[in-house]
Amino acid sequence: MNTPHPQQPIGIFDSGIGGLTVVKEIIRLLPNESLIYFGDTARVPYGTKSDSTIKEYSVQDTKFLLTHNVKLIVVACNSASSVALDEIKSRTDKPVVGVIKPGAEAAVIASHHKRIAIIGTNATVSSRAYEHEIHKFNSEIDVAGKACPLFVPIVEEGWMDHEIAFLTAKEYLFSLKKFAYDTMILGCTHYPLLKNVIRKVVGENVTLIDSGIETAKQVKNILTEMNLLNPSNQKPNRKYFVSDLPHKFKEIGEMFLGEKIERITKIDL
Amino acid sequence: MNTPHPQQPIGIFDSGIGGLTVVKEIIRLLPNESLIYFGDTARVPYGTKSDSTIKEYSVQDTKFLLTHNVKLIVVACNSASSVALDEIKSRTDKPVVGVIKPGAEAAVIASHHKRIAIIGTNATVSSRAYEHEIHKFNSEIDVAGKACPLFVPIVEEGWMDHEIAFLTAKEYLFSLKKFAYDTMILGCTHYPLLKNVIRKVVGENVTLIDSGIETAKQVKNILTEMNLLNPSNQKPNRKYFVSDLPHKFKEIGEMFLGEKIERITKIDL
Repeated sequence: MNTPHPQQPIGIFDSGIGGLTVVKEIIRLLPNESLIYFGDTARVPYGTKSDSTIKEYSVQDTKFLLTHNVKLIVVACNSASSVALDEIKSRTDKPVVGVIKPGAEAAVIASHHKRIAIIGTNATVSSRAYEHEIHKFNSEIDVAGKACPLFVPIVEEGWMDHEIAFLTAKEYLFSLKKFAYDTMILGCTHYPLLKNVIRKVVGENVTLIDSGIETAKQVKNILTEMNLLNPSNQKPNRKYFVSDLPHKFKEIGEMFLGEKIERITKIDL
Repeated sequence: MNTPHPQQPIGIFDSGIGGLTVVKEIIRLLPNESLIYFGDTARVPYGTKSDSTIKEYSVQDTKFLLTHNVKLIVVACNSASSVALDEIKSRTDKPVVGVIKPGAEAAVIASHHKRIAIIGTNATVSSRAYEHEIHKFNSEIDVAGKACPLFVPIVEEGWMDHEIAFLTAKEYLFSLKKFAYDTMILGCTHYPLLKNVIRKVVGENVTLIDSGIETAKQVKNILTEMNLLNPSNQKPNRKYFVSDLPHKFKEIGEMFLGEKIERITKIDL
């Protein structure tokens, strides 16, 4: 095992653009860190694909990040974190952080009535990955999940404040109503951009858990424990790679990231 | 060149499930023909990908159909027909039919005022493939296009009669209103399932062109001209292949096809 060095970058991958909401939180919490982001835009979305396909693609994404000598890998994709995390961990000795465990842990702490709702893609919800993690913390918590496939294209159209977003949220979340949850996990990296409309539908008494924020906290904890935080105050290097359509990634990506993306490179995996 | 035989199957491919609306029309018009369908469900959708990626995938799909000794190839995918048809034709001596030209020709005949609107995925609309075909028939026709990315997931949710479908259609089609078209091409194989809601928004005076129906007619014409219509009255063989998630394909596919799908095989390309 090569000992990692604090100045090495953090590697982050997602099936596409959504992982940038996780990057946003990592930048906010760890502004000195260099980052390598890979968005697999040629094969997006992962959420509609089978477990074995998601595993295969995730391993390829991980191998790409490892060629950039990253010190830690963030799987900033709920579908890949749900089904491929063990497979990824078996391929590297670097620490690997998914978005499921941090989100699950935060939800367990937040839920006073032990009733947690989870929304995400078909793959994330049907994998029951959040449920399994939640039950590792506390087996007495009741969990209900609901897949919301229209949310991703609504965000990518920029319709976050449109009536269609509100009606779609109402339609999807209606079936959860009788479950009487007090905490909801936004189990897809696109969903933080729909926080306002989801808040309108679920009301003020539900705690919304943003897995991106929780994941960034865990990345900071691990790097701190391992003495791998970058002590340098020099401008960090942030590089973005995609497997297709770099221009579209830049255009929509800056909305997700809340800042300019200077350099995007298209690669073939 | 091997001379094709009337009893060989017709090969049809699409990025996923939408091509089944074309299959439905082929079955209606040519009930004696055996069919091989391939849906590239591991890599769906093509519409969000770059031209070079769509070409690469389409060539792989074509090669798969050719291994099944098909007599004619239908590219039942607007995105692939828009950008990859020449590439596909260069790889085989079998006749290749896309969905663009038949749809364009039917629209030209239908449009008395020479103003045609085209709706489809981002790739189809920005390729301007329908526009180019229309102008080959008549260069004086005015054309306007509008990409409608939410239509596909709305159909796949089965929300064809929901207010969300209506509002989304209104939102997308509003910008076309001032163009004053009399004919609209449904330039995506999912869209025939939204015909009712689109009709409500555009009114009774617009002719809606279903490329699937027009493509089936052209397939019949070509097979007739080449003496390749299957004369047998035996039950034809219809085989369905997908690259991922055969169960989901069966479930949604029967809604598209309007009949049972007996056998679906998952393959790796």
